[in-house]
Amino acid sequence: MVAELLPPERVLMGPGPSNVHPHVLRAMSTPLLGHLDPAFLTIMNETMDLLRKVYQTENKLTIAMSGTGSAGMETVFVNLVEPGDKVIVGVNGLFGTRMVDVAERCGATVVQISAPWGEIIEPQKVKEALDSHPDAKLVAVVHAETSTGVRQPLEKISEIVHNTDALLVCDMVTSLGGCPTEIDKLKIDAAYSGTQKCLSAPPGLAPVTMSDRAVEVMNNRKSKVQSWYLDLSMIVSYWGEERSYHHTAPITMAYSLRESLRLIVNEGVENVYARHALYGEALQQGLEAMGLKLLVNKEHRLHQLTSVCIPEGVNDAKVRSRLLEKYDLEIGGGLGELKGKVWRIGLMGYNARQQNVTLMLSALEDILLEEGASIEQGAALSKANEVLKKCVLV
Amino acid sequence: MVAELLPPERVLMGPGPSNVHPHVLRAMSTPLLGHLDPAFLTIMNETMDLLRKVYQTENKLTIAMSGTGSAGMETVFVNLVEPGDKVIVGVNGLFGTRMVDVAERCGATVVQISAPWGEIIEPQKVKEALDSHPDAKLVAVVHAETSTGVRQPLEKISEIVHNTDALLVCDMVTSLGGCPTEIDKLKIDAAYSGTQKCLSAPPGLAPVTMSDRAVEVMNNRKSKVQSWYLDLSMIVSYWGEERSYHHTAPITMAYSLRESLRLIVNEGVENVYARHALYGEALQQGLEAMGLKLLVNKEHRLHQLTSVCIPEGVNDAKVRSRLLEKYDLEIGGGLGELKGKVWRIGLMGYNARQQNVTLMLSALEDILLEEGASIEQGAALSKANEVLKKCVLV
Repeated sequence: MVAELLPPERVLMGPGPSNVHPHVLRAMSTPLLGHLDPAFLTIMNETMDLLRKVYQTENKLTIAMSGTGSAGMETVFVNLVEPGDKVIVGVNGLFGTRMVDVAERCGATVVQISAPWGEIIEPQKVKEALDSHPDAKLVAVVHAETSTGVRQPLEKISEIVHNTDALLVCDMVTSLGGCPTEIDKLKIDAAYSGTQKCLSAPPGLAPVTMSDRAVEVMNNRKSKVQSWYLDLSMIVSYWGEERSYHHTAPITMAYSLRESLRLIVNEGVENVYARHALYGEALQQGLEAMGLKLLVNKEHRLHQLTSVCIPEGVNDAKVRSRLLEKYDLEIGGGLGELKGKVWRIGLMGYNARQQNVTLMLSALEDILLEEGASIEQGAALSKANEVLKKCVLV
Repeated sequence: MVAELLPPERVLMGPGPSNVHPHVLRAMSTPLLGHLDPAFLTIMNETMDLLRKVYQTENKLTIAMSGTGSAGMETVFVNLVEPGDKVIVGVNGLFGTRMVDVAERCGATVVQISAPWGEIIEPQKVKEALDSHPDAKLVAVVHAETSTGVRQPLEKISEIVHNTDALLVCDMVTSLGGCPTEIDKLKIDAAYSGTQKCLSAPPGLAPVTMSDRAVEVMNNRKSKVQSWYLDLSMIVSYWGEERSYHHTAPITMAYSLRESLRLIVNEGVENVYARHALYGEALQQGLEAMGLKLLVNKEHRLHQLTSVCIPEGVNDAKVRSRLLEKYDLEIGGGLGELKGKVWRIGLMGYNARQQNVTLMLSALEDILLEEGASIEQGAALSKANEVLKKCVLV
């Protein structure tokens, strides 16, 4: 007989998945409804309303696609792009690179704006690209680069893009629910995210939102969307009043999303952002007090995800294994050109709280000492607690 | 404050989703592992092994795609088909129609073999199509048509297809875990399924299996797969020994699949098929004893899904609503050209047991009498019990 599932219990402080809120885990053992049951349709409506609050938008088209965050990325590109279209993509990390790949598979001509991994895309570069390519259909940037920990400022870029006819697309996989996304205020035309980061739900759904302008672009397509599974022209008829069957919605995942959004909205989105900022700040100052260097400069650093430069002579994989073995604590390694150069530490959603800051700083210090790294001993915790003492969350 | 989730508890006897096994629901509240955690990689290996047993195959490429059954369909077509390829598709229900749509979006030239909804695709027709189109790259048929309840015999078709160089693709969304799928014995080159039917897990994953021949065809592609999200050339590197990150796997859904497969393998696949056959037979004979007509002739009828012709003068939607209101019992309506003409009753996975046969026959009889239908009163239950008495399951 095959044995029952009994995985070790981990503290997930990598770049995601993050730990699932216990209430969300509980919601996932709720018995199923059918995907056309009137009670499930109510849950879908509630989920859309909650998602609008967390995305900070009134966009009618605000739904969850039946796949992970990468399916959300593909949804935006396959629906907005037609073969031959020109698109401008900011590439300052792995997910920008991925957008280029996805867009090219849609038959787009891609103009890349590159910046070093760990830096932002400068708005001026976007202006130059649009000046050289005034026929670009959209400009895509990553709001929170999961591979580097960079927070991309969007205000100026939005202004520049909206001085043309192009649409602004944002990857918000690691930002949704972790810092302000302000879809309407920033006039973002299309955004996608995942559920396993700051929403504290398991991976498996991709929240997507589209402005009316983006919807109009989709409605004026000349060619069929190349993906049947991700074709929004059919999927909105299921989420909308027609309730036409498209595919069987992932019911349990929908339960988990509704519950995770409910917890965020009940806590208050502004409070949730403040909590991420506070504990993220404490962790980052603690890491620096330990003598570690952070990849991203302070101004453009995400609070929910921190890239730490691996100290000279320290074995990347060994440290991560030891954290997992000794503390059941997961952190992420570097991706792409940052492989072996950084660790990525997440403090996302439910995980953004005191005990995780303390655990991470203590455990990392312990293992780094084990590995003979030269660090400032005992400084991290006191620094983090000093930051935390200055601020009381409501 | 937004209220907690508290949906009504339904008996799901439509075409799927079916009720989730209580052990599977329980497994879904297991805390998450990271998608690259060694403990999760072990769970993936175990899941592949279990999936091979249930698909009845030794295929190395036997994995779960991160989407619902329709994503499984799209996976097979986007990976096997290149623009300009010719494919032959059997269309005798909605899911054949969907395959045509998906294949065309991949740039395929599609040759359709049509049969009336509720009937099988005759092997002779496949032979004729292949004779006229010897350059066809693949032949696709639906093993268990969820829109009609037809079980497509595959032996002869497989023989015919394999007398040529074409690949045989099968939709097994409603057959996997409900009746023999025999991938290796029948030389099926590619199959896909869903988790929400006979596996008794929630919707959200698409088990896919591919023969070595199909893998070779993929390896010899000239063009990139048009979907990044479903590109098997990258996804197999995550499921394989390389463990390269592609997208964040839906961890909780993976838990649910492992648990559902574990329950099936521990019960024994042959026993599971026999249980579906027995209770399905009892239900079908009960329905006929009530005086209802079944859409599909006995020889080609699935046991796990039965299409019942709606009696003259009876209001389709009213009966389904009444079953839901009064009994918390869901059955499915007809799709496409069968809309308003049939009901679809599922007895899948965990649901294939005595209490559901009895509930369905009693409740349907009650509501049909409420609606003034002329049926044979009191005959259904005794007929079903007579069938069940003749057979004892191990």
